Amino acid sequence: MKLKELADRLKLELRGDGAVEISTPAPIEAGQPGTIIFVAGPRYAAALRATRASCAIVPAELAGDAPCATLISGNPYADFSRVLDIFFPPYRPPAGIDASARIAPDAKLGAGASVGAGAVIGAGTTVGRNAMIHPNVTIYPNVRVGDDFVCHSGASIREGVVIGNRVTILNGAVIGAEGFGFVEHDGNLVRIPQVGTVMIEDDAEIGANTTIDRATMGATLIRRGVKLDNLVHIGHNCEVGEYSRFAAQVGLAGSVKVGKWCQFGGQVGSADHATVGDRVLAIGKTGIHNQVKSDTIIGGAPWVEGRTYRRYVAALPRLPEALRRLRAIEQRLGLRVGPQSAENP
Amino acid sequence: MKLKELADRLKLELRGDGAVEISTPAPIEAGQPGTIIFVAGPRYAAALRATRASCAIVPAELAGDAPCATLISGNPYADFSRVLDIFFPPYRPPAGIDASARIAPDAKLGAGASVGAGAVIGAGTTVGRNAMIHPNVTIYPNVRVGDDFVCHSGASIREGVVIGNRVTILNGAVIGAEGFGFVEHDGNLVRIPQVGTVMIEDDAEIGANTTIDRATMGATLIRRGVKLDNLVHIGHNCEVGEYSRFAAQVGLAGSVKVGKWCQFGGQVGSADHATVGDRVLAIGKTGIHNQVKSDTIIGGAPWVEGRTYRRYVAALPRLPEALRRLRAIEQRLGLRVGPQSAENP
Amino acid sequence: MKLKELADRLKLELRGDGAVEISTPAPIEAGQPGTIIFVAGPRYAAALRATRASCAIVPAELAGDAPCATLISGNPYADFSRVLDIFFPPYRPPAGIDASARIAPDAKLGAGASVGAGAVIGAGTTVGRNAMIHPNVTIYPNVRVGDDFVCHSGASIREGVVIGNRVTILNGAVIGAEGFGFVEHDGNLVRIPQVGTVMIEDDAEIGANTTIDRATMGATLIRRGVKLDNLVHIGHNCEVGEYSRFAAQVGLAGSVKVGKWCQFGGQVGSADHATVGDRVLAIGKTGIHNQVKSDTIIGGAPWVEGRTYRRYVAALPRLPEALRRLRAIEQRLGLRVGPQSAENP
Repeated sequence: MKLKELADRLKLELRGDGAVEISTPAPIEAGQPGTIIFVAGPRYAAALRATRASCAIVPAELAGDAPCATLISGNPYADFSRVLDIFFPPYRPPAGIDASARIAPDAKLGAGASVGAGAVIGAGTTVGRNAMIHPNVTIYPNVRVGDDFVCHSGASIREGVVIGNRVTILNGAVIGAEGFGFVEHDGNLVRIPQVGTVMIEDDAEIGANTTIDRATMGATLIRRGVKLDNLVHIGHNCEVGEYSRFAAQVGLAGSVKVGKWCQFGGQVGSADHATVGDRVLAIGKTGIHNQVKSDTIIGGAPWVEGRTYRRYVAALPRLPEALRRLRAIEQRLGLRVGPQSAENP
Repeated sequence: MKLKELADRLKLELRGDGAVEISTPAPIEAGQPGTIIFVAGPRYAAALRATRASCAIVPAELAGDAPCATLISGNPYADFSRVLDIFFPPYRPPAGIDASARIAPDAKLGAGASVGAGAVIGAGTTVGRNAMIHPNVTIYPNVRVGDDFVCHSGASIREGVVIGNRVTILNGAVIGAEGFGFVEHDGNLVRIPQVGTVMIEDDAEIGANTTIDRATMGATLIRRGVKLDNLVHIGHNCEVGEYSRFAAQVGLAGSVKVGKWCQFGGQVGSADHATVGDRVLAIGKTGIHNQVKSDTIIGGAPWVEGRTYRRYVAALPRLPEALRRLRAIEQRLGLRVGPQSAENP
Repeated sequence: MKLKELADRLKLELRGDGAVEISTPAPIEAGQPGTIIFVAGPRYAAALRATRASCAIVPAELAGDAPCATLISGNPYADFSRVLDIFFPPYRPPAGIDASARIAPDAKLGAGASVGAGAVIGAGTTVGRNAMIHPNVTIYPNVRVGDDFVCHSGASIREGVVIGNRVTILNGAVIGAEGFGFVEHDGNLVRIPQVGTVMIEDDAEIGANTTIDRATMGATLIRRGVKLDNLVHIGHNCEVGEYSRFAAQVGLAGSVKVGKWCQFGGQVGSADHATVGDRVLAIGKTGIHNQVKSDTIIGGAPWVEGRTYRRYVAALPRLPEALRRLRAIEQRLGLRVGPQSAENP
């Protein structure tokens, strides 16, 4: 594709030779002639100056550093994403319903649907327009889904779940299984019926093999734009606020409330009934058990403020030596006598 | 439903107006006219006194606090669970075998079975009465399952697994995959055949996308009444004792033995060959590596007694400052001289 | 089977009575007459001397300790694995393609394939000889797989993934789902297209419900002989080196590079762009965030050298008392006066 044509499709200002041929986008370290790269900020200015790529998507202030043609962008990474979509359009299964799919007679599918082999759609379920339901998906009865739904193979959507528009569910995810609630009774554990549901709002994306449990009563809420990575667990009655992102293997116990635009690193966990404000950044493996205020960086298990966490983990390796030094001082001061002290190092 | 009728069905003592109409159970914070709530103990007495619900299930000693009709219960939460079941009977697929299910000719299914679309049942497998096998479940050959089996979509039960009565397996769970055993040989890793099986006893419940590996020899044992939440991993040759509960993302390596009535918080992990007694409570993220006695609360990784854990994590943020104070004392005492000391803070 | 026949099949030197009948292999603690056990090293010499088994597979130097016949082996565990395979040949589904499997007309399957009920193989996909594709597997279009492929029920292989020879994928694993990449743009989160793929080399084994994400560009690489346990997460653009083994619930964020012959314990996690050398042993729950040199044992989160880790975790329970002792010294020295000090313990 000529660079000029690409610039027109992206509606970005072109500086340099529009006649150059672009054959593929590439990461900056693989910028060869014929490729288009992107540079998000001044941190990569030196690499930009040395690139052999034919074009770079850059912010205006870096255009002068490029030894090649440039496309001027307010958000080079986002515009590079559009380039990727142009050169590598995502796989789309053919429209139409595979003969081996099992769709209940009263289920409703909007126009443009693709339903793969072995997919099952239960009674009373409605799905909006342009759905892509891949093979071997199971959608239970009475589920409601909006438009532009993408649901990958092996996923299960349980009865009565409600899903908005432009939601993507990756392979093997389970939406709406029974929450983990039992009560002791007469030497037995009795299941507490989980009669609520799960609501997933518009533009959310749910990772592979992630599980989101239905509420005991009411709904477990995944708000607009939430992005959950793979193998995440969301317990019953949780709420994850708009545009919050959880990396892989994060787990929330029951009734946890997380605000907007949070980012949780991998393997973060939260005890039940914790409350997390907006824009909280949790370092990987953080353990949350109570309230966290908005705009906080947290780390450690149990969590503390991020700076405190970084300081104490840096100090930890010196703890054994500090105990020895403490003892030496006590001996110097004549403070260590008798059998009780002997137990200490 | 009239409250009188509900009381009769629950066989609970009714105090107050049995003619009041109950339209739905509700959590205590949503107790409106027409709802029935429950109060488990005196902690919620104030909320009970303020409720607008039409009825409350309460222990006898709280009946006087209720401004509404009451049902007297020895275990209000368990009886409330029964109310939930009455008002919201769980989804049951229609009995019968879907035409697209693939059942081996010599597999045996008891009376009352429901087998969903795309479910597969292998040769020589026997399943008891009233099974609910949801769509796209795969049961391998020679599996034996008792009565009242519930197996949700996407789950896989591997060859030769043995399952008792009233067992529920949630979506995507994998029972009986090969344990993780390899031995180095000639610069290669050779698989150790995993020729054992998994036995799941009566009344157990296995969470969504949870994995329970088959034993190398013998059986991985999930005892009666065990409840595993989602994304739990149970390694080969483990034994989980009666009525123990594991929250989400708990992982046991091989040959771990856990006693009865234990409760493990989320993301707890255990190294192989550890032994845990009865009624052990493990705080979320605990790491277990050796023996834990019965009736212990544990926390931390590696685990220590719960009280010790809480004390040291509370002290951790003060560690950096303690190191500075230690140094100040050493300087005061003339203990810090020479280049070695200079490396310390 | 006569021991002599077993020795011949294993091509191992037999010492003792070859006419004895072997009915089953057994672990050493269950060594009864008629069983064959193995002993890997001198640690079990006493158990060997006391065994009632009819035969033991032993290294030459332990042959004198056996009260029974012996098979002499350079690697008793590996040879015992071969015995397990002889006595308990693994389940193999019948060859042939189930009528309910959906194979695209232009997909190519080598000779000897078994494809189970409900399995789906997409357009343009090629699979080598002797494949065992179990029921309800979904293989998307344009996947390339080598010979002797084993893929268990519920697994999903996404479009364009490349898999070598003798690869085993356990139930529910997801290979090639979109990596977790989003960029903020105009108050929204825009998906970064993940146009790369996953390459799994020869002899790798992927655990149940494990997820391996496709690369943003290029390929996520699982090198020859890698063994991943269940519920492992491998992020986009990672590389796991030859013969490295990850226990259950390990998680790697994006672009992590792990060398050869590493062993990661359960629940280890790594932040993105970390680099781990060869033969690194990571204790369970380790957190990795930067560079780790080859031949290192590591523990803790964030990680430190294993010996350092063991020392500081042993010291941790004494931290609260150390703070009290520190304060006592300060009081003795008259160092604690004024309000600032009063805040300290």
